[in-house]
Amino acid sequence: MSNDEFPAWSREVAGRMEAVLDRLLPASRIAPARLHDAMRYAALGGGKRVRPMLVFGAGLVSGADPARLEVAAAAVELVHAYSLVHDDLPCMDDDVLRRGKPTCHVEFDEATALLAGDALQSLAFQLLAEHRLADDPQVQLRMVQLFAAASGSRGMAGGQAIDLAAVGRTLTLPELENMHIHKTGALIRASVLLGAHCGRPLGEAGLASLDRYAKCVGLAFQVVDDILDEEGDAATLGKTAGKDRDAGKPTYTSLLGVPQARRFAGELLGEAHEALAGFGAPAARLRELADFIVSRDR
Amino acid sequence: MSNDEFPAWSREVAGRMEAVLDRLLPASRIAPARLHDAMRYAALGGGKRVRPMLVFGAGLVSGADPARLEVAAAAVELVHAYSLVHDDLPCMDDDVLRRGKPTCHVEFDEATALLAGDALQSLAFQLLAEHRLADDPQVQLRMVQLFAAASGSRGMAGGQAIDLAAVGRTLTLPELENMHIHKTGALIRASVLLGAHCGRPLGEAGLASLDRYAKCVGLAFQVVDDILDEEGDAATLGKTAGKDRDAGKPTYTSLLGVPQARRFAGELLGEAHEALAGFGAPAARLRELADFIVSRDR
Repeated sequence: MSNDEFPAWSREVAGRMEAVLDRLLPASRIAPARLHDAMRYAALGGGKRVRPMLVFGAGLVSGADPARLEVAAAAVELVHAYSLVHDDLPCMDDDVLRRGKPTCHVEFDEATALLAGDALQSLAFQLLAEHRLADDPQVQLRMVQLFAAASGSRGMAGGQAIDLAAVGRTLTLPELENMHIHKTGALIRASVLLGAHCGRPLGEAGLASLDRYAKCVGLAFQVVDDILDEEGDAATLGKTAGKDRDAGKPTYTSLLGVPQARRFAGELLGEAHEALAGFGAPAARLRELADFIVSRDR
Repeated sequence: MSNDEFPAWSREVAGRMEAVLDRLLPASRIAPARLHDAMRYAALGGGKRVRPMLVFGAGLVSGADPARLEVAAAAVELVHAYSLVHDDLPCMDDDVLRRGKPTCHVEFDEATALLAGDALQSLAFQLLAEHRLADDPQVQLRMVQLFAAASGSRGMAGGQAIDLAAVGRTLTLPELENMHIHKTGALIRASVLLGAHCGRPLGEAGLASLDRYAKCVGLAFQVVDDILDEEGDAATLGKTAGKDRDAGKPTYTSLLGVPQARRFAGELLGEAHEALAGFGAPAARLRELADFIVSRDR
């Protein structure tokens, strides 16, 4: 496998995700139609699909059935989509633009966006429980558990709360890292672990290595996000540029400056590669994905 | 078992639930503390605990271990609590009083209430997956699935959406019933099924009978709620009285009038008893609970 295969693979995963989500989300014609429209609006038609790529990439390491990986990736993407819908609400970030489109509460209304987020979370757990994702149902219960923990108050939702409390404050670097480890890192780690669990058992050491990879990639993703937010413009990003900085939110660039932030992202990338050293060729896509996350321009 | 045992039993279930939720919710001292405080505020210290009683009552029918029922009941109560927190938000019902206390977003803030609701939902699924609730892990996955379906867009969250769309409209009786079957009925039915699944298999027919019981009880609960909302005062209800009527929301009393609504509740109670006929003495608490739901004054 050469580096040249990554663009085709990532396009394939993104295309497959769109089809899978389209199939697994309730159809618009099913009542309550407006709620289902809002759920589909929030989950379909875009996003970088980084988390699904992590699920599929980890699944290559454990030799998992792609049909299982599709469902696990859909669950992760639904929770990611719900978190964006709620994060964009007026009482949170009050954002009007997401992926180049009006945010869900702008396109629909606040109440519908709130409920769409709630129902996307429920649907994620429904998918994880109703499809066969592991040979051993105990492993599948463990998958539901780790995913719920990653989504909840000591994972993603907790990270949002830390973020809320941080607006307008000067954070130290460890405090900023703690926020991101929860806010985006928890779901990224869950993506890798879910993908791995869909295949053959990798053992504690194997899972720990994948988790270390995911931790580095998750943080690098955020550092690069901050750099892009600082330097980008709305047309490229598909969302309001400079928004975090203007909102007085702490960022890696505000703490470190852009050059130092870039260096930090490079270090995290190096550690991510190190963590995968024992996996050989099956981890090629995860390596390329890490490279992509650090070098992307949007 | 005589009818006299019900008050003691219901107090015991309510007391046990308070202790179980206190134990299973993250402690306030664990970061993010404000989020955990809000989750505890929303889930502890009150409510009628009707859903836990349904879980425990159904568990008596299937001879389930109370340690399992505690966890299943906690999951249901967490989802119920999250739905109330989100339902009370300004973009939904905009309510300031719940169970005689300020609503979560009034006591904390909107963003924290939003996240607390989100995290309560995650925690419910975490509990259902991490504790052993059934001898067969496939059955436990089935429990997660039915609970997620009951919570989502074709269950509780869908009912909220139907409710939103109904404000200011005149609904027919079947439309009103459809709303309640989703909004409150889905979680009530899930409570009974989860409790049953914690014990020995009851077979399709047994589960169908319990489900019929739950459907009647759920609807009766709502009819009585409407009667109480029409007749009650805030001091007794612990929430703003006449609010649904004043908000132009359709109710059983606005469609049927109070006397006819009372008669309908009585019919539902009769059908609930009929559904339990085959279960004999172990269903005594479920029978008494149905009686309580219809005769309660708050």
